[in-house]
Amino acid sequence: MQDVITTWHQAGERVALVPTMGNLHEGHLALVREAQQHADRVVASIFVNPTQFGEGEDFEKYPRTPDEDIAGLEAESCDVVFIPDTEQIYPFGVEQSVSLKASPDLAARLEGYNRPGHFDGVVSVVARLFAITRPDVAVFGEKDYQQLLVVRKLADDLGFGIDVIGKETIRDAAGLALSSRNAYLDPLELTLARQLNKVLSETGQNARQGDVIKAHEMDAAEQLMSAGLKVDYVAIRRADDLSVPEKFEGGLRILAAVRCGETRLIDNMPMPD
Amino acid sequence: MQDVITTWHQAGERVALVPTMGNLHEGHLALVREAQQHADRVVASIFVNPTQFGEGEDFEKYPRTPDEDIAGLEAESCDVVFIPDTEQIYPFGVEQSVSLKASPDLAARLEGYNRPGHFDGVVSVVARLFAITRPDVAVFGEKDYQQLLVVRKLADDLGFGIDVIGKETIRDAAGLALSSRNAYLDPLELTLARQLNKVLSETGQNARQGDVIKAHEMDAAEQLMSAGLKVDYVAIRRADDLSVPEKFEGGLRILAAVRCGETRLIDNMPMPD
Repeated sequence: MQDVITTWHQAGERVALVPTMGNLHEGHLALVREAQQHADRVVASIFVNPTQFGEGEDFEKYPRTPDEDIAGLEAESCDVVFIPDTEQIYPFGVEQSVSLKASPDLAARLEGYNRPGHFDGVVSVVARLFAITRPDVAVFGEKDYQQLLVVRKLADDLGFGIDVIGKETIRDAAGLALSSRNAYLDPLELTLARQLNKVLSETGQNARQGDVIKAHEMDAAEQLMSAGLKVDYVAIRRADDLSVPEKFEGGLRILAAVRCGETRLIDNMPMPD
Repeated sequence: MQDVITTWHQAGERVALVPTMGNLHEGHLALVREAQQHADRVVASIFVNPTQFGEGEDFEKYPRTPDEDIAGLEAESCDVVFIPDTEQIYPFGVEQSVSLKASPDLAARLEGYNRPGHFDGVVSVVARLFAITRPDVAVFGEKDYQQLLVVRKLADDLGFGIDVIGKETIRDAAGLALSSRNAYLDPLELTLARQLNKVLSETGQNARQGDVIKAHEMDAAEQLMSAGLKVDYVAIRRADDLSVPEKFEGGLRILAAVRCGETRLIDNMPMPD
């Protein structure tokens, strides 16, 4: 992997990395196409990272479809698919590995609060992928919006000199954000799940300059619960650092995590200014 | 810094990094000369890293002599001296920075036990220096032998693809390991400090295949204490991973840390097989 990338760099080519956990859908392929806009060469990685899953989460059952993934990436003219095994990413074993802790304030909230240690696992694997592939650019989906900010801060803080680009979430015809975890949903749950993007979108449309943020968050949570979803959080935050605004203003984003049956779903979107 | 190194890499040149905390002595310059054997270009960095000093340690008074350091490196034909300030290494501030934890077992013993968090600070800064300078080779002194192993494991574990080379300790005529902290010693303390390398060396000469390790460690500690030094540890360990041998065997190293007045000194050396 490193030899190939060294050859590209020596030829003056820009390299983009698209880190994934596999089971690729249209959202991932959009990341690859975005990466092609910013670089001469695109590397997609597929690695289901154990250190970002908590106790009782779905690490074991997370869908693994390498053959279909490779075919899909080939069709997009992705240059290299990097599929390391756990021993390549954690050569001394997870327990004795060097671990990273994500930037405290940013990682403590929302997803980090609900999934303790999750972002530490994310930066522990992404730092390795960055060190191995030394890309000029990396593309992450806005679907995991907080992860995008955490990874951008990782790149800037450690000085990798990597431009971390966020790509808009890809949705199905009814607006449901594409996710590998949607496959866990039965038909009834799928109907419930469709409330998530709908409520977030309507909250954005209803908000007016100067409105109290908390009221909109509670109203949205109420609607999601009435629809039969369990709500981990609905939060309206400043888009650049997820800090808490008091009144409705420009540059905000609404983020939510719900449980739909046994399946945990997240979504987020910019709010109209 | 990164633009310069990119230019070198595109020209197919190998780059070596020599990380230092400045106040350079002959030991540091020997690292630069070693680096020149392994690479076309040598970068020396000077940064007194706050995160590897504990409470009450000598971060504030650590000697800073940038002008002399630059002159010394120039005389050795070092290609670049990289002197970042704290805001470049920790752009979001130390408190909100991404931190690294060194490999647990290796970092918990000896220096790590006596200086809690020290090696976490070391890997937190070295990972940044590696990410910024992307060297092919990095050279560290064997004087900080455990640090050398911790950093080598960092490079291998994160997949930087950097060859971490250890360079033999440089000593004065009487065998005292060169160290910036020797400058803290008054003439009487200097006389005491000279017992450290003497006792370690004699312990190696007296040991015989099959001897009980513990007896030699205790004997050496006893001698150091009798000489008027306070002993943090004397340890005979396997050189490759600092694991504990039961009987004297090949491939061992003797390591010690003592306090001489207010000054903490460390030394280590291979034991004769």
